[in-house]
Amino acid sequence: MVYDLIIIGGGPAGITAGIYASRQKLNTLLITKTFGGQVTRKAVKIENYPGFLEISGQQLIERLVNHLKNYSVSIELDEVSRVEKKEWGFLVKTKNQKTFETKTIIIASGADPRPLEAEREKEFIGKGLSYCVTCDGPLFNGKTVAVVGGGNAGFEAAIFLSDFAKKIYILEYNPQPGADEKNQTEAQKTGKIELITNAKVKKILGDNFVEGLVYEDRKTGQEKELSVKGIFIEIGSQPATSFVKGLVEFNERDEIKVNPFTGETSTPGIFAAGDADSVPYKQIVIACGEGAKAALSAISYLKNLKKKA
Amino acid sequence: MVYDLIIIGGGPAGITAGIYASRQKLNTLLITKTFGGQVTRKAVKIENYPGFLEISGQQLIERLVNHLKNYSVSIELDEVSRVEKKEWGFLVKTKNQKTFETKTIIIASGADPRPLEAEREKEFIGKGLSYCVTCDGPLFNGKTVAVVGGGNAGFEAAIFLSDFAKKIYILEYNPQPGADEKNQTEAQKTGKIELITNAKVKKILGDNFVEGLVYEDRKTGQEKELSVKGIFIEIGSQPATSFVKGLVEFNERDEIKVNPFTGETSTPGIFAAGDADSVPYKQIVIACGEGAKAALSAISYLKNLKKKA
Repeated sequence: MVYDLIIIGGGPAGITAGIYASRQKLNTLLITKTFGGQVTRKAVKIENYPGFLEISGQQLIERLVNHLKNYSVSIELDEVSRVEKKEWGFLVKTKNQKTFETKTIIIASGADPRPLEAEREKEFIGKGLSYCVTCDGPLFNGKTVAVVGGGNAGFEAAIFLSDFAKKIYILEYNPQPGADEKNQTEAQKTGKIELITNAKVKKILGDNFVEGLVYEDRKTGQEKELSVKGIFIEIGSQPATSFVKGLVEFNERDEIKVNPFTGETSTPGIFAAGDADSVPYKQIVIACGEGAKAALSAISYLKNLKKKA
Repeated sequence: MVYDLIIIGGGPAGITAGIYASRQKLNTLLITKTFGGQVTRKAVKIENYPGFLEISGQQLIERLVNHLKNYSVSIELDEVSRVEKKEWGFLVKTKNQKTFETKTIIIASGADPRPLEAEREKEFIGKGLSYCVTCDGPLFNGKTVAVVGGGNAGFEAAIFLSDFAKKIYILEYNPQPGADEKNQTEAQKTGKIELITNAKVKKILGDNFVEGLVYEDRKTGQEKELSVKGIFIEIGSQPATSFVKGLVEFNERDEIKVNPFTGETSTPGIFAAGDADSVPYKQIVIACGEGAKAALSAISYLKNLKKKA
């Protein structure tokens, strides 16, 4: 079977695209590992999705998924490994070795947390090192932990952790943290958070499980050790778009170049929306809007295909 | 006082811009005649605003306004008549003879219903002739009415009216109505709706109140009279942007040209979002996304002003 549309990604952009496409009765498949993307990784409540004064990422995604499932759309919980262009459309291959055929694609695969690239980092993933404070934070009850990154995400992670952990270090690479005044004040109020600036994390320590880290004090050049049981990396994200490398054009930030009026990419039949695309502001409601545009453009592309046939 | 930002319009785009701007503590004024714009004029429930399976336009707008009022934002219930550029920013003048000063503007004034341009049309506005079926439809209980326009909006208006009116004519200019199959079927089911195609409405009849209309049968060239107590115009909309004519660039549809990455117009300091702008898809969630972009761009513009000062 050839789908009308395959949506890759189950965050706000992909779900909105799915709602729009399935309401127009496109034969649609949505492929995603999990629903929610970065939204469910957020350590603070969402206050800027219009219509909800305050809602957790998990709750918002549940509402969106519930909305999507009200329509007829196929869902495959899997990860896309590769997209190939054919004369009649596209092949979408997944990590679970499945292959799907489709006439159009919306890439809404969002962004993944950026790794620290410290020594032994990969070894400790899931063994005390995490990129998701809401997923793993509660495991560190009564423990001392470190958050790497002093932007808003880092501070919000530390504030979230202060409900569980005994003590939280924030390690910031620059002389000053990038977080808002509001987050800095709130962090101070917890009495549990200590900021270390000019810190370049070089190595994770431990046997089977994280036991500490080594960082360079960039002011003195001195290497220092910190004894912690958990490490949370909060240094931004990178577009999760490697499966279409060579197939569509990218910008210098590895985002898929789109026409922001329509969501069209450089390849006819492939559209993109959300954090994977080149629209500069990464916000939930903007991703939803771009998802709707991409779906409407896919619908109009399919209509034109029909006319030509 | 000079505002940081004046938002013109209180539909989804303007309200979202207001939420974003006021959360960032911009000194913001929102000017609108009423809240909701076209959303509250919709005759059917909204099913494609992500997060709500089904919600009336009125309910959605109440939620958005409630969200906005949670923050510190000034609201002026008035209509903008003119914007003037000054060296330091902009003057915004209203129909109630007030003048406000601001450093930046977001135009989110949406679109107004397109008038029919039939003889005596203006004379009967509010006297049986209406552009808003949800506002005025219930007044025509047991009466015979006409809807001008056979697109989805026209059919949805007629279906809405079938709960009140005895009989509803839909007058469509073209040989075929533009409405979806679904709406056409539903209209038929009411047993109250009669479609007249090839009909060019030329004149409204009546004394103080609508009593009928004259249309030309475009097939035969014959003029015909229809006896109705109410007339609803549903032939689309036009951007409500005359107050910035000459100040920003427009496209051929009278929409304000924007950079869709950022909401910037051709005039630095003026941004636009929603149905007033040149983004092609007119959808609530897209308007919200563009409103957020415009606010974030205004915030960044103001930061740059500060740096220069």
